[in-house]
Amino acid sequence: MNDQEQAPKRYLEIIQRANQIAATTQLDDLLDRLLDLIIEITQSEAGTLYLYDAATDELIFKVVKGSPAGEALLGRRLPANTGLAGYALQHRQPFFVNDVANDPRWNRTFGEMGSLDLRTMFCVPLLLRGEPVGVVQVFNGAFEAVDEQEELLLIDLLTSRLVTEIEKARLLEESQQRERRQHALVEIVSHLTTTLERDELLRRIMSYACELLEVEAASIWLIDHERNDLVLHIAGGENSERVESLRVPRGQGIIGHVIETGETVVVNDVQRDHRFYQGLDQRSGFQTRAILCVPLRSPQIILGGERGEVEGMIIGGSQALNPKHGRTFSNDDIVLFQTLASQAATVIRLAELYRETDSLFTRIIAAITGAIDLKDPYTRGHSQRVSDFSVAIAQELGLSREQIYQLRIASKLHDVGKIRVPDHILKKPGRLDEEEFAEMRRHPLYGIEFLRDNGLLELDLLRESWTALAQHHERLDGRGYPYGLKGEDISLFGRIVAVADVFDAITSHRPYRPPMPIDEALALLQRGAGTEFDPACVEALIRARAKGAILTQDEREQAIASQTME
Amino acid sequence: MNDQEQAPKRYLEIIQRANQIAATTQLDDLLDRLLDLIIEITQSEAGTLYLYDAATDELIFKVVKGSPAGEALLGRRLPANTGLAGYALQHRQPFFVNDVANDPRWNRTFGEMGSLDLRTMFCVPLLLRGEPVGVVQVFNGAFEAVDEQEELLLIDLLTSRLVTEIEKARLLEESQQRERRQHALVEIVSHLTTTLERDELLRRIMSYACELLEVEAASIWLIDHERNDLVLHIAGGENSERVESLRVPRGQGIIGHVIETGETVVVNDVQRDHRFYQGLDQRSGFQTRAILCVPLRSPQIILGGERGEVEGMIIGGSQALNPKHGRTFSNDDIVLFQTLASQAATVIRLAELYRETDSLFTRIIAAITGAIDLKDPYTRGHSQRVSDFSVAIAQELGLSREQIYQLRIASKLHDVGKIRVPDHILKKPGRLDEEEFAEMRRHPLYGIEFLRDNGLLELDLLRESWTALAQHHERLDGRGYPYGLKGEDISLFGRIVAVADVFDAITSHRPYRPPMPIDEALALLQRGAGTEFDPACVEALIRARAKGAILTQDEREQAIASQTME
Repeated sequence: MNDQEQAPKRYLEIIQRANQIAATTQLDDLLDRLLDLIIEITQSEAGTLYLYDAATDELIFKVVKGSPAGEALLGRRLPANTGLAGYALQHRQPFFVNDVANDPRWNRTFGEMGSLDLRTMFCVPLLLRGEPVGVVQVFNGAFEAVDEQEELLLIDLLTSRLVTEIEKARLLEESQQRERRQHALVEIVSHLTTTLERDELLRRIMSYACELLEVEAASIWLIDHERNDLVLHIAGGENSERVESLRVPRGQGIIGHVIETGETVVVNDVQRDHRFYQGLDQRSGFQTRAILCVPLRSPQIILGGERGEVEGMIIGGSQALNPKHGRTFSNDDIVLFQTLASQAATVIRLAELYRETDSLFTRIIAAITGAIDLKDPYTRGHSQRVSDFSVAIAQELGLSREQIYQLRIASKLHDVGKIRVPDHILKKPGRLDEEEFAEMRRHPLYGIEFLRDNGLLELDLLRESWTALAQHHERLDGRGYPYGLKGEDISLFGRIVAVADVFDAITSHRPYRPPMPIDEALALLQRGAGTEFDPACVEALIRARAKGAILTQDEREQAIASQTME
Repeated sequence: MNDQEQAPKRYLEIIQRANQIAATTQLDDLLDRLLDLIIEITQSEAGTLYLYDAATDELIFKVVKGSPAGEALLGRRLPANTGLAGYALQHRQPFFVNDVANDPRWNRTFGEMGSLDLRTMFCVPLLLRGEPVGVVQVFNGAFEAVDEQEELLLIDLLTSRLVTEIEKARLLEESQQRERRQHALVEIVSHLTTTLERDELLRRIMSYACELLEVEAASIWLIDHERNDLVLHIAGGENSERVESLRVPRGQGIIGHVIETGETVVVNDVQRDHRFYQGLDQRSGFQTRAILCVPLRSPQIILGGERGEVEGMIIGGSQALNPKHGRTFSNDDIVLFQTLASQAATVIRLAELYRETDSLFTRIIAAITGAIDLKDPYTRGHSQRVSDFSVAIAQELGLSREQIYQLRIASKLHDVGKIRVPDHILKKPGRLDEEEFAEMRRHPLYGIEFLRDNGLLELDLLRESWTALAQHHERLDGRGYPYGLKGEDISLFGRIVAVADVFDAITSHRPYRPPMPIDEALALLQRGAGTEFDPACVEALIRARAKGAILTQDEREQAIASQTME
């Protein structure tokens, strides 16, 4: 057969091979198989394939064939103007080299192909619409044996095909990578919102940042407005405990710059950035190479109610340090980290706002509790202790966390109605007359009125717990007040607080009698179990006492005194 | 030239053309140009290209060439076993038809090519690894003029190429679509978190759902535990106001099923689903065709503090109705909506938790305010009015929303120290003696102690506003109490509350005197401006009064009485 006859068949075969190769959508696989094909067509002994990274103007060593020694070079990056590959890229033309080893352009450092004796080279830049995508080099080919023009045409066909497929595989890989990261970000952002506990939140943000950006460490700094400085709240990496809670003045270092200006800063070589503050690395032993630093900017948040909106502000900044796998920070990294930081800032701010309101509420309740007990100087600390005892009983009874939370509030307020009982009755040293006694016994009703008049009964949080106020003087046998309810008609909260209330009353100091000894007090409760008290609640209190969860007024004050002594 | 000589050139040309076409990554463009090329190679007069949708086992009419009439068919779907295209797909073999018009397999409904006189057809199934991807049909080609085997080989080459490119373009398009949607979802999820105001939140969720899923309407249902039913909180689409706030029993309809079981339900033809509840459509006039219904499942949320965690639960469900552009709900739609719903549920729950705590706090403050005023029956409603007046003054002075919020709380508590002043002094009908008067003048100090003893001074929310308690009896000339501060040494909050306090004191009823007429009261404040009062605060009160924002005790009670009468 002559060449003319062979040609169509050969073309068809090669194109069918190319079609098969093109069917892969995996970039690495594609590059590997296409280099194989070009080596085969040109009857070369070895070959290399580089991809061009336009962002850094570098060539990345992606595939090497025919030289096991060359595989050590995989993944290495070199400036795009280096060696024969760089020459091909700059001139955007394929060319032959007849004596590689003696060519002055040959880069020995990166082009080292081990034991292979390099003679000729054919070098083809991969161009897409005139722009560089990569370079293919094949060595020691048999070009002299065939029609050079035909061969060049064929290789041009193949490489122009290759470049299209590389581009598509890259696009797909990048899109899938972004899709995976966006998907991960959605998961992260959703998961962040499930905690308003600040330390847990900061831990999660930091660990997500490391995972998402594939960096060696991350850190979070928050502004302390009171002391006007920046606090390192959490840092990853080894020895991070050495730098935790570190403070730096506002404006210092890259983080300071970012927090003051709200700008994102990316530094791929911190040693060259004068803003980089060395102190932290010195302290932790961590060696910072590259930093991506973004502001934590909380947006305006609509709270509704009396508070309305709270304004947006920068609350701190976050850093990602040292991308893994020799990468530098990409634009995608920056956008991703900014998005994560923005959501993190929102949730940190939400957590603060919730914490503020919750603390204010908790302390106001404590203040009311204190004020109730102040009305009668002899019941100092009573409401707080009744609350603690009630919670201990409820825990023994296995109530849910939510019920216990509600019981804790309600039991603190159990005597709130007493604020309506006049001082001259409440503080009367002697015996109350019948009218005074009747007034005194109205305090559970006054308590309910206190809740109702102020719209507190409508709230889900108090919807069941009001019974702690209303029913803590009821008795199982129906001889209690104010309603005379019997047995199970008395709510569980009412029965719990009744036991806690009596236990504290008899074990604390009163002007007219000393505290009852513990054993006697417990015996009294046990004797009343079934008539006055719910036996399950009495048993629960006794179990809790055995575990050390129930301390009387004296015991508690001694404990506090001995703590203060130490 | 003979065929043998032309062949390589022709192959190369065609393959170069194919390479150029393959460079596009846009699916539609790719299909269009590849059909053109096949028509050209086969010298056909017309052609069509279908893509196969494996999810529905349908062929979608994507490209038509050479028949303007056929363009009406674009986008139409037909069962994959229909006509010659279906035949090719089922047999997975290309074939010729010599007389299309009389072929029994020819589908006249969908294959209508208008005025074109159809004679021959060449039909090629597009297969990727043996699985159908689509079908190409070309009509009235010139196959008899060329070597049929060669031609088949060439077309096979091209179509096997085509199918790879179609697959890649599809993968890329799908990946980019998912990426866009994930990106949109991140934005949405982040934006949701910036409001804890429930109605605003529900509106946002619904509008995001419509946008993200490209549906005609969406709705949100929440469980009302108290009434044990489901409430339609917000619905999109026309006439949605007719169905808003509608209630249905738990378990009814598709939404009821989803909420009870926690399962996602997708129904692409609701008329065939017996669970579909027609009532809503009848009421709104909306015609539901397809439903995607997901549960709103809030996860466990860590709140920290005394409350700890709150358990996860299903709080309701959300529906997306009628995908636009004739689509049906895809798996991507389902996953996307589930993710959105999960985040929506989290934020709805957070908003509830914040609202609960905030309401409890607000009402407890109101309760304390009421209790303070109760101590002295003649100052009924005083603290609340002083708070309202202070807020009105602050608004006139242009204070920020956050400052006003803090002032509102602090001014309600301005007299809280009075709870430590004994009843016999506070309620004494006659003149106080010197000792009693001194005790009475200690109430600002007692107020600060109340805040400090209960850890309230440490809170950011009260960090500045405590001055409202401490300094509301100071005077600009230094003759006030308890500190005798002068001028600017008195905080703005102190100066505001001082004016509000005196104005309410003189315009309300006291046992020993009638309320001062308004004009006299304002004149008194103006006379005191500069010595006793901050002139700016006095002016602000006068401006607020002119706008109707300041109502005295009498005016307020009359307003309430007349409202009750109506």
